[in-house]
Amino acid sequence: MVKKFIPDWTEKAPEPYSYRSIFKWGNPETFKHPNPKLYQELKQIFQLDDSYFQHKTNEGRQQVQYKKPVNLTQNQIKALAEIVGYDNVSTNEYDRLKFATGKTLEEALKLRKGIIERVADCVVHPRNVEDVQKIVAYCNKHKIPIYVYGGGSSVNFGLRPAKGGVTLVLSTHMNKILNVNETNQTVTVQAGILGPALEEALNNAQKLFGTKYNYTCGHFPQSFEYSSVGGWIVTLGSGQSSSYYGDAYDLVISMKWVTPVGTFTTKDYAATATGPKVNDIMKGCEGTFGVLVEVTWKIFRYMPENRKRFGFIFKTFVDAINASREISQGEFGMPAVFRISDEEETHIGLKLYGIDGTVLDKFMQLRGYKPMQRCLFIGSAEGEKHFTKNIKKQVKKICKKHGGMYITGLPTRMWEPGRYKDPYLREDLNDYGILIDTLETSVKWDNLHHVHKAVRQFIKSRPQTVCMTHASHFYSHGTNLYFIYIMKTDDINEYIQFQDGIIDTIAKSGGSLSHHHGVGRMLAPWMEEHIGKEQMAVLRAIKKHFDPNNIMNPGGQLGLDLKDKNWRKIK
Amino acid sequence: MVKKFIPDWTEKAPEPYSYRSIFKWGNPETFKHPNPKLYQELKQIFQLDDSYFQHKTNEGRQQVQYKKPVNLTQNQIKALAEIVGYDNVSTNEYDRLKFATGKTLEEALKLRKGIIERVADCVVHPRNVEDVQKIVAYCNKHKIPIYVYGGGSSVNFGLRPAKGGVTLVLSTHMNKILNVNETNQTVTVQAGILGPALEEALNNAQKLFGTKYNYTCGHFPQSFEYSSVGGWIVTLGSGQSSSYYGDAYDLVISMKWVTPVGTFTTKDYAATATGPKVNDIMKGCEGTFGVLVEVTWKIFRYMPENRKRFGFIFKTFVDAINASREISQGEFGMPAVFRISDEEETHIGLKLYGIDGTVLDKFMQLRGYKPMQRCLFIGSAEGEKHFTKNIKKQVKKICKKHGGMYITGLPTRMWEPGRYKDPYLREDLNDYGILIDTLETSVKWDNLHHVHKAVRQFIKSRPQTVCMTHASHFYSHGTNLYFIYIMKTDDINEYIQFQDGIIDTIAKSGGSLSHHHGVGRMLAPWMEEHIGKEQMAVLRAIKKHFDPNNIMNPGGQLGLDLKDKNWRKIK
Repeated sequence: MVKKFIPDWTEKAPEPYSYRSIFKWGNPETFKHPNPKLYQELKQIFQLDDSYFQHKTNEGRQQVQYKKPVNLTQNQIKALAEIVGYDNVSTNEYDRLKFATGKTLEEALKLRKGIIERVADCVVHPRNVEDVQKIVAYCNKHKIPIYVYGGGSSVNFGLRPAKGGVTLVLSTHMNKILNVNETNQTVTVQAGILGPALEEALNNAQKLFGTKYNYTCGHFPQSFEYSSVGGWIVTLGSGQSSSYYGDAYDLVISMKWVTPVGTFTTKDYAATATGPKVNDIMKGCEGTFGVLVEVTWKIFRYMPENRKRFGFIFKTFVDAINASREISQGEFGMPAVFRISDEEETHIGLKLYGIDGTVLDKFMQLRGYKPMQRCLFIGSAEGEKHFTKNIKKQVKKICKKHGGMYITGLPTRMWEPGRYKDPYLREDLNDYGILIDTLETSVKWDNLHHVHKAVRQFIKSRPQTVCMTHASHFYSHGTNLYFIYIMKTDDINEYIQFQDGIIDTIAKSGGSLSHHHGVGRMLAPWMEEHIGKEQMAVLRAIKKHFDPNNIMNPGGQLGLDLKDKNWRKIK
Repeated sequence: MVKKFIPDWTEKAPEPYSYRSIFKWGNPETFKHPNPKLYQELKQIFQLDDSYFQHKTNEGRQQVQYKKPVNLTQNQIKALAEIVGYDNVSTNEYDRLKFATGKTLEEALKLRKGIIERVADCVVHPRNVEDVQKIVAYCNKHKIPIYVYGGGSSVNFGLRPAKGGVTLVLSTHMNKILNVNETNQTVTVQAGILGPALEEALNNAQKLFGTKYNYTCGHFPQSFEYSSVGGWIVTLGSGQSSSYYGDAYDLVISMKWVTPVGTFTTKDYAATATGPKVNDIMKGCEGTFGVLVEVTWKIFRYMPENRKRFGFIFKTFVDAINASREISQGEFGMPAVFRISDEEETHIGLKLYGIDGTVLDKFMQLRGYKPMQRCLFIGSAEGEKHFTKNIKKQVKKICKKHGGMYITGLPTRMWEPGRYKDPYLREDLNDYGILIDTLETSVKWDNLHHVHKAVRQFIKSRPQTVCMTHASHFYSHGTNLYFIYIMKTDDINEYIQFQDGIIDTIAKSGGSLSHHHGVGRMLAPWMEEHIGKEQMAVLRAIKKHFDPNNIMNPGGQLGLDLKDKNWRKIK
């Protein structure tokens, strides 16, 4: 018997100060490798054999080294250091690159080759609101650009210091819980706190804060482990349970902002009729209006014991979507996790979850749920126990009506432990020149299939390219489509052009430019055509009010100060 | 046996072209009189006897007549007429006053005395979006102020043409349903449509639009019969079932706006992450940014058969509020109607609903629910039938825990038919010099009792003054307080000063300036201190962008162009 070949997937944390330590997703010590089924699938798709997987390329293991001048004067750096303390200012090469870099695939591909496009002049770790106020005032006076780094998970060049200047790292010190208000069911935090610190504290609120109950923050994006509360809000993120808890937009009660024209805190009333809501105007500004420093956020009772899980298989994507629409409009409450995979994602997902080839798989096929036609729906309900029980009951009834077969809560249970882990797959694939990336959009029910087909057609027109799609954030009038594409190419420019083509296709077929990844710089060139020049003018007017000297995240972000792809060329 | 005296409550529609025909609430042929119990209560409170109610004063039955020049040139009026047609332009005295007047009590009191403060120069009834575009462009060029009249129910001088000019009446022609999209569960309407026309059409959607189901708009403010969809949005209204369906803010999918700098339609995606949401920035602008002409609005299945009603009596207001908080944070879905009356409102409410003095009343008293201590909670649940059943079950459990006694769904049933009728009481009372008015605020759970006590203390410090309060819009982190005060005075200035004192007390005790009545001109002088100068500056920056010549609802609205009470003095 021949021993099965397994590629030498990397199992070692990146070397300190290496490029890889910057672009690798997540915890340096955590990995997720393609399982054998997925590996077989990849070989088949790309017509490769085991020998191809003998050698990795462009692993980015070399030490960061480059020559780029610091474009701030010694006096300016000294002035910043006097504000925050010398320990909290850095101009070393590694820091200037690390905090200039998010998790955009293009960034990773280039760093693997040692290509460095933009770095900060100076990295500053403010300790508190007063530090931020002084820095913003100083930089505004001296016209020094400011960029803000929270968890570092942007996938659209949102963190790129296009014009150099200062990068403020909010997650270093400004990551505390300031108050848990059990009466109002809110938590007030510094904006730099990351997901796990917040959620762990809330889950243990009785012990830590002496509250009557334990709580949850309700927001679990895939980037949860490496994204900050501030980042969730300024990029308009959505969590994997958003259909029940709401998007980041819905969860923000009030905020404190430091802007070039002053500091203010929005009111924390439940609802008011006192003119346009400044609290909402700030959300989604991606750091172009100011620095978000504090957040009061809705919290919910932590009741995992009430969670009800369910899974279904449908004969077609149309059936699955029809069921999901009926659920979303059913008025019995919404599932928390609510995720429908299309034909191709189901095909690969069943391999990933280890269902492919099992007795369950055979049973499904016998019952007419055929590979590359069938679609998987996994979900769970949260809340009060009779409420979750009824959701499960109604979901089952509706799915059955649309030809769905109940396959128990097992697929959801299998999905849960890996819910934040899929991004770790990227490094393994990239090590062998296989690119995996995502783009996503918001659709209404009545144009969902049109957008889905158009994007799939575009992606699949490229030979040997995987296109998996799911819908995972549901509303009464629509949902999102999340496209994952896998391709093999050594040519970064080919990849960029292909990605541009997908974005074009999404926009032209009538999807939104972004459902929850934000715009950053990558999607900015499409913004003006997408929302229209009248609405872009509104955003620019607000920007001008807050930031007359254009020091807040300048150089392409949201398309405010550049209308085209020139952000790539800023020196 | 002496026949009981009943005052000669007016039962006749106001004479055409009379002042009364302008200030009377609602349908000219509809009336709601104080019932005998309330009449007795009023006599007792104000220490009056039947003889006082022999004579009415200031009924406003005279014909409207005044001399105020039209401050537009003949050419300007001709130009407007050429746009909309001569039939749709009026400069007659009655129209100029009628469409300059809302339902603010001060307006009514003054019109009763024939005091006219502000009128439009010209009233225009646009037929369509193109008309509005041409009018806005023309007026912007000639710097002619524009005011917009929908249903006419503003209670804070929101419609007052402070600087004369043109009043656009949107409800005359621009009141059509443009599209019912059953797939997305949305309806698109012209902004001037009033509540009943929309709701009736949706309730009969199967017949009228050939849909599979019938629908509801989910928004039922007390002003429902005389308020427009556009008005709901620009003033940030809330309906009586908002705890379940959401506030107007939440129900708007997209909008079309005509502004001095252009016309645009916001995107109708379910959610997007494409920068600050212009769709939300426009909400609450109270006509100061432009004219809202079309709205796409969420709709819901019309399932009155699933409605579950419930009523409870609590021993104290604190108990009732504690129960309502636990319900609002209970995660089993929210009641639709959800209304807690404080001690004094319960006292008068039980008289109004005819419960006072009945067997039920006696039973309640026997069980320790004492007058002027006990508090009434009425409510109902809507949605899918198991969902509503569970809400009722959970609500009962929580109320019982807080000492509430279940008194069946009867009080809710008795409240329902009159849900839009209470405002009709005003004319009867005013005819006898008794003033009834309301102010309302948003509170968080943790400052609710402080605000409630402070406002009650202020109101009750005036001898012989009724102060009834209820909370009727619930959120996980707070609710609203709605104050109804009844006083007897002939002195309009005393009334105005008293009202100012209440507003001061609300603001100083930490309530919001308005939960769902909007700001208008009446609350505008408090705005800058309330939201802070930094946030006022944001609103002013957006205003300046849309309306550089300040022609859209100028003269105090929202406090944008006046910081103090000078709006009263504008000539």
